[in-house]
Amino acid sequence: MAHYIVANGFADDLVLIDKNEGKVKADALDFEDAMANLPFHTNITVNDYSALADADVLVSAVGNIKLQDNPNADRFAELPFTFAAVQEVAQKVKESGFHGKIVVITNPVDVITSLYQKVTGLPKGHVIGTGTLLDSARMKRAVAARLHVDPRSVAGYNLGEHGNSQFTAWSTVRVFDQPITQLAKAKGLDLDELDHEAKMGGWTVFQGKKYTSYGVATAAVRLVNVILSNSLTELPVSNFREEYGVYLSYPAIVGRDGVVAQSQLDLTEEELQKLQTSANFIKEKFQESLNADK
Amino acid sequence: MAHYIVANGFADDLVLIDKNEGKVKADALDFEDAMANLPFHTNITVNDYSALADADVLVSAVGNIKLQDNPNADRFAELPFTFAAVQEVAQKVKESGFHGKIVVITNPVDVITSLYQKVTGLPKGHVIGTGTLLDSARMKRAVAARLHVDPRSVAGYNLGEHGNSQFTAWSTVRVFDQPITQLAKAKGLDLDELDHEAKMGGWTVFQGKKYTSYGVATAAVRLVNVILSNSLTELPVSNFREEYGVYLSYPAIVGRDGVVAQSQLDLTEEELQKLQTSANFIKEKFQESLNADK
Amino acid sequence: MAHYIVANGFADDLVLIDKNEGKVKADALDFEDAMANLPFHTNITVNDYSALADADVLVSAVGNIKLQDNPNADRFAELPFTFAAVQEVAQKVKESGFHGKIVVITNPVDVITSLYQKVTGLPKGHVIGTGTLLDSARMKRAVAARLHVDPRSVAGYNLGEHGNSQFTAWSTVRVFDQPITQLAKAKGLDLDELDHEAKMGGWTVFQGKKYTSYGVATAAVRLVNVILSNSLTELPVSNFREEYGVYLSYPAIVGRDGVVAQSQLDLTEEELQKLQTSANFIKEKFQESLNADK
Amino acid sequence: MAHYIVANGFADDLVLIDKNEGKVKADALDFEDAMANLPFHTNITVNDYSALADADVLVSAVGNIKLQDNPNADRFAELPFTFAAVQEVAQKVKESGFHGKIVVITNPVDVITSLYQKVTGLPKGHVIGTGTLLDSARMKRAVAARLHVDPRSVAGYNLGEHGNSQFTAWSTVRVFDQPITQLAKAKGLDLDELDHEAKMGGWTVFQGKKYTSYGVATAAVRLVNVILSNSLTELPVSNFREEYGVYLSYPAIVGRDGVVAQSQLDLTEEELQKLQTSANFIKEKFQESLNADK
Repeated sequence: MAHYIVANGFADDLVLIDKNEGKVKADALDFEDAMANLPFHTNITVNDYSALADADVLVSAVGNIKLQDNPNADRFAELPFTFAAVQEVAQKVKESGFHGKIVVITNPVDVITSLYQKVTGLPKGHVIGTGTLLDSARMKRAVAARLHVDPRSVAGYNLGEHGNSQFTAWSTVRVFDQPITQLAKAKGLDLDELDHEAKMGGWTVFQGKKYTSYGVATAAVRLVNVILSNSLTELPVSNFREEYGVYLSYPAIVGRDGVVAQSQLDLTEEELQKLQTSANFIKEKFQESLNADK
Repeated sequence: MAHYIVANGFADDLVLIDKNEGKVKADALDFEDAMANLPFHTNITVNDYSALADADVLVSAVGNIKLQDNPNADRFAELPFTFAAVQEVAQKVKESGFHGKIVVITNPVDVITSLYQKVTGLPKGHVIGTGTLLDSARMKRAVAARLHVDPRSVAGYNLGEHGNSQFTAWSTVRVFDQPITQLAKAKGLDLDELDHEAKMGGWTVFQGKKYTSYGVATAAVRLVNVILSNSLTELPVSNFREEYGVYLSYPAIVGRDGVVAQSQLDLTEEELQKLQTSANFIKEKFQESLNADK
Repeated sequence: MAHYIVANGFADDLVLIDKNEGKVKADALDFEDAMANLPFHTNITVNDYSALADADVLVSAVGNIKLQDNPNADRFAELPFTFAAVQEVAQKVKESGFHGKIVVITNPVDVITSLYQKVTGLPKGHVIGTGTLLDSARMKRAVAARLHVDPRSVAGYNLGEHGNSQFTAWSTVRVFDQPITQLAKAKGLDLDELDHEAKMGGWTVFQGKKYTSYGVATAAVRLVNVILSNSLTELPVSNFREEYGVYLSYPAIVGRDGVVAQSQLDLTEEELQKLQTSANFIKEKFQESLNADK
Repeated sequence: MAHYIVANGFADDLVLIDKNEGKVKADALDFEDAMANLPFHTNITVNDYSALADADVLVSAVGNIKLQDNPNADRFAELPFTFAAVQEVAQKVKESGFHGKIVVITNPVDVITSLYQKVTGLPKGHVIGTGTLLDSARMKRAVAARLHVDPRSVAGYNLGEHGNSQFTAWSTVRVFDQPITQLAKAKGLDLDELDHEAKMGGWTVFQGKKYTSYGVATAAVRLVNVILSNSLTELPVSNFREEYGVYLSYPAIVGRDGVVAQSQLDLTEEELQKLQTSANFIKEKFQESLNADK
């Protein structure tokens, strides 16, 4: 994310905070070494929570990806680590006087987004997880490849948990201005297979390089730019839905004031059930973590 | 480099080649997962040498950075590995029918640039190493920080080997339209200290994260863009100088035809000696490798 | 368009051709005067048809906008001028050996796109008019303003002639993942009014400044970039539809090979009639011009 | 400028103010019509001085270029118009509560920059004219064309009035790391001719299209970005020099706090005289205008 931001001058001031001081100072110096060859300037500050007092947007990428490097692991393998770490970080963020918007990448993202909101006490709409913005992009990539079209020309969403209980809401997916459910019949597409491909996208990348980076960073920077420029873009991000009482991915209209409106999809019964299952799962995991923490 | 290129749409077609097939496929998929959230499109091809037949520019980043992770190691610690690897790669590049320009990052970059030229048989001006374009940026960063000015407003060059025998040619460095040698007296700057800071920049970053990335990638992408857009920019890159009989960093005018002209600096006697020492060192190392290879 | 392209480095080489030699040389010099302050380089050539021999994309913006400055005028007021001018230009383009893709802005765009294809003899899919890509953006702007959402989050198309017989195909428009026809009822939107607003957008801008520029230039550059990067994006552009026997705006999949596929919308009976009327009108005007020309 | 800013997303919020309400509303609508096809979002406000209260940077492009369309006219032909207009505008800017930085393009730029500072009462370093940043780019263009090198690889400045009394300070110009005065002898360059070419650049463009746009807009946007990103770049802009008691172009270090430092060039006696002449001329013209205004 930092590289994408610095290379494009998306931010004038960038604060990098990391417990691994050697690493974060090396990254900052490496960026400084790029400046003379870059067209835009970015002012970089390292490990200074007080610099967040007037920041517009904060991104949380706290994590320990190695915990997922296990055949039986999923994004929840990181939870014990990230739940503890984020409690500490969120407290410091709060104490800094930060009153901007928080974008959360840290996994499991829906639970952790809830936690940031709880600890900081910021309005629910000011804390947003990248959620299935990435998984939707993966679904678009899979559909687009099959249909020989630009992923940007595929509309639709993956919903729910940014994790195993997520699903592609095929009733929302359209290509060539047609519902994909209709196209699938005409062209013999196997939607379950595509759904699996989208869901497994992260896993495939992870298997190959033991982390994922470009997809999630691009999604997160897009979300940050949408907030900064107040573009009011509809994005499937992790936001708090009253009817489920939890953060989960569902399209919302995002601007400078965070989530400024929420979409209301016409999902099928089956999709509604999957979403409920996903919501229950996130809720349960969040509750478990809170209890464990007492 | 690939991230910077894809995020900005600098290339329409990008071919990624890596022996670690799992890693390179994961990176390609990760980029594909970014497309739906990126404004520009890039077509990505993996591990296909034949796709290089009509490529405009090829970048070599072959390396094994772990070999440098040793208190006594320098960039030459990679040479046994990269010399062998590049012979194989360059042969395949040649067989692909590639007839564009080669940009070399692989270390030790001056020796390896020579090797690419030798094996491919491309004109000397069509093979260029990033060389001290990065070290010059590091020098500018160090000088700029001391003088509270934009590194882009510092002019001047580091010359010679992209390695320990390099040096800042202070006679070429100017800030506020003044020779830095004059400013240094007025402001009490210690140029030896700044030279050391520039030279150690890569080492400091390496110590912190066990590799360097943003600085060198930005320098290399700039060089690629200069070639593609034929901007005829003067850059301190590794190019073949007849009078030294070797590739080393010295300002050259770069365009679509590679090195289209070479600058002629007014160096001091001391700088000329340092440059000769650097040239001798590179030549010797290249010869040693060729001999060892017989 | 040239400004947008030069400012962003979208093209490495740009050929500007204009009968008003004073004007085009002034523009070229003005761009050259910008180079030192721009991050990317563009090589600019003036009034040289032979430079088109290996061009990837050619854009036609031939026109005489003053002919539209009349209370009773519409885009067809330019036809006598542009029909004659384009015959001459297209012939020269053909003679240059140009074999790339043509993007047409010249109005009336559907008729003129047909004419370029006829004179150059290029494959039909290699000649494309910006058509209602602009009008669709105007419709999205109007809908988005009413619903407080990003125009980029409004899906759908204006179809047919880039002129008075065009219409918003409301059956294709979706916001918040709902058909706008449904939303309109719930929110009391007057779609006829929005349709009128979109259609009149160009007129309103024209009234204020006696020409339009940013909207159409942005649409055209987007189309050019889609062609250059082979992104296979679905865009409502003027392309030849067999069933109507004429160029008119209808979504098509565009890539490096021009129109590589055509969408097939599920329009309502009323929309199909409007489209037929629009097609008949364009056909008739093209035939009239051809006859008048004999 | 607005087009360059909107097309690149350089500003999140853009306020356009113009007495010609029809024109400015048309431009704003034209930009809105571009949004759906642009990657970045900009919020556009029209004719609202109160929106300047918390603006970071304000650009003045007030002018009446037609007054220059006369064989005997120069930039001072606009002065009676712009002096009156800017007094009114600057007063409204002051009343809006604006406390950011002002970038002045309005001609004659040195006199008008003085006027903005006087009327608004802002610190002298917070009001900056683009001055010879444009003329320096023209000089670089002329030198670069002669030497077959990138204008970005030419260093040096045009100084003094952005008008007829300006001059290229050849003692500051360097190419291929050599003083151009030295190169000129070796390569037979006629520096007077190049000086004339740079100075006449604006006139040539003006003759061809009756206004100039891309060169000056690019210079001004660069200056705005330097301010916003606090890059501390050294730029030859119109800034207040105590020793001359007037605004004139001379390199300064520019950042978020405006002019944060001033360079001190080693000019030749002849150059110092030319600069003094230029300063006297600006001072006199400013005084004349103030007197005429009483």
